[in-house]
Amino acid sequence: MDEFSLIARLFAPLAAGAPGALGLTDDAALIEGPAGRQWAVTADALVAGVHFFADDPPDLIARKLIRVNLSDLAAMGAKPCGAFLCACFPRDTGTAWLDRFATGLKSDCEEFGIALMGGDTVATPGPLTLALTAFGDVPAGQALLRSNARSGHDIWVSGTIGDAALGLRGLTGEGPADPHLIDRYRLPQPRIALGLALHGLAQAAMDVSDGLVGDLGHICRASGVGAVLRADLVPLSQPAAAAQDLALVLTGGDDYELLFTAPPETREALISLSGALGLRLTAIGRIIDGTGVTVLAADGQPMALGAGGYRHFGV
Amino acid sequence: MDEFSLIARLFAPLAAGAPGALGLTDDAALIEGPAGRQWAVTADALVAGVHFFADDPPDLIARKLIRVNLSDLAAMGAKPCGAFLCACFPRDTGTAWLDRFATGLKSDCEEFGIALMGGDTVATPGPLTLALTAFGDVPAGQALLRSNARSGHDIWVSGTIGDAALGLRGLTGEGPADPHLIDRYRLPQPRIALGLALHGLAQAAMDVSDGLVGDLGHICRASGVGAVLRADLVPLSQPAAAAQDLALVLTGGDDYELLFTAPPETREALISLSGALGLRLTAIGRIIDGTGVTVLAADGQPMALGAGGYRHFGV
Repeated sequence: MDEFSLIARLFAPLAAGAPGALGLTDDAALIEGPAGRQWAVTADALVAGVHFFADDPPDLIARKLIRVNLSDLAAMGAKPCGAFLCACFPRDTGTAWLDRFATGLKSDCEEFGIALMGGDTVATPGPLTLALTAFGDVPAGQALLRSNARSGHDIWVSGTIGDAALGLRGLTGEGPADPHLIDRYRLPQPRIALGLALHGLAQAAMDVSDGLVGDLGHICRASGVGAVLRADLVPLSQPAAAAQDLALVLTGGDDYELLFTAPPETREALISLSGALGLRLTAIGRIIDGTGVTVLAADGQPMALGAGGYRHFGV
Repeated sequence: MDEFSLIARLFAPLAAGAPGALGLTDDAALIEGPAGRQWAVTADALVAGVHFFADDPPDLIARKLIRVNLSDLAAMGAKPCGAFLCACFPRDTGTAWLDRFATGLKSDCEEFGIALMGGDTVATPGPLTLALTAFGDVPAGQALLRSNARSGHDIWVSGTIGDAALGLRGLTGEGPADPHLIDRYRLPQPRIALGLALHGLAQAAMDVSDGLVGDLGHICRASGVGAVLRADLVPLSQPAAAAQDLALVLTGGDDYELLFTAPPETREALISLSGALGLRLTAIGRIIDGTGVTVLAADGQPMALGAGGYRHFGV
């Protein structure tokens, strides 16, 4: 049983009475905010040895923790406001390490304009384990949901894809240790300005955390549609293009770019937006009637990718 | 450095710009809710081998997780609404265990009328680690805060004190394994109805999680006052009285009763409330000008208790 079936079987029934929980299938939940607003709320955990290396720089661990959560808020089109931190530190964690960790938190709290609102600090006999709950505000009823994709609409993605998965390979010695790729793995860039600007342009959105093809599959399931993805259109950084590992690019996780769908008539507006934000936005396919994600190679033939996307507890 | 100085030194500066964070010194933070309401939000983590035993019944682990968080909401006088769960399960966690864990979650979600709103499910190479962020609503400006204690007011506590610490001793073989005490350790009762009823009666409140004397010290520091606690008035269950370990009763944690202060003119109302709720409420001392907690024995002499209360990272 992977985490998706586990969540669907065990946890989703506990969300049934709360429409704002969105069936536990979206990037964040929605709760009532002050007049005309909603709070988008998301929670993500990072564990040493699973999501980062125990000897990663402490400030980068803190910043990755914040950023993977803010990326979920960006995917809903929410403006980040604050966060709650549950930190389980190994008992032998030293003061110098903690200081650097706090420096990373501070840096990103300032960069993204969020406050630490509360949490819990405990000692653990196990690996460093961090859980963050972040919240941001969004105009009521305007959150970008995974379930809004419609047949005939374009599929877009921000930035470049595959860098983080290739960066992780570099860190584990399975690939070249390219600094750009490693940086992309260690320090994601939550696309907050993009998420906010997508109101009125995009319809469905999510962040690419488990892998492009797998994540597009989540949108298709939530929206009851299918998708055709053009592998040759997927935007690559120069070092990712040089790596020539298309399967990893399409299924590797941790990019934290935004994947969204939009009607064809917004194309020009999205191209202008790309220029205004200084952020690449690329149309990579089309939503269709049907189910599942079909990936087409440059020759127009379907590609077989196996089970795409990172899964905890996968068999 | 214990967790309180760690939070004060590293994390509190990150909360400075947000009044609702209450300096990270209260049971929950306050964020803006719909008209006339606020959300009280709290986050607590539980780690196997630290906060519970890895072989505890899975349903009770789940329920304890929910209850320690709801206890923080009760302490603010908030009505629980929902929660976000970050669950880090050891890789070898079996389906039967997960089913029982989910059964416990379901049971308490139903009992307390809350919905699971989101979260994260990951695999960990370490011990089972659970972080919950719970939220509840409270009339705007009416939350019970630790900082509201005033000189001359009575100090009250709900239920009985020391049971959970004695129950833990029973589980570790350091004391008699009394079923009532063990149950009190494993399955706290968040005093939600009491917290809601304390609006207009109590002023300062918190839940007793780190130990009665240590927690009363938190109220004193937050309010800039001192306290005199009458040890002979502290309410004990029959098995706790039989254990004759007053020092443990006064400093042991995990009771999750409410500790609150109220002006003397509310005494009769509080006694009526006790009857209405079927919950013991006991005046155990007085807030005074000054600092610190003075504990008086039955003979009126001050007792020395050492450093009271459980502290992670304590020296």
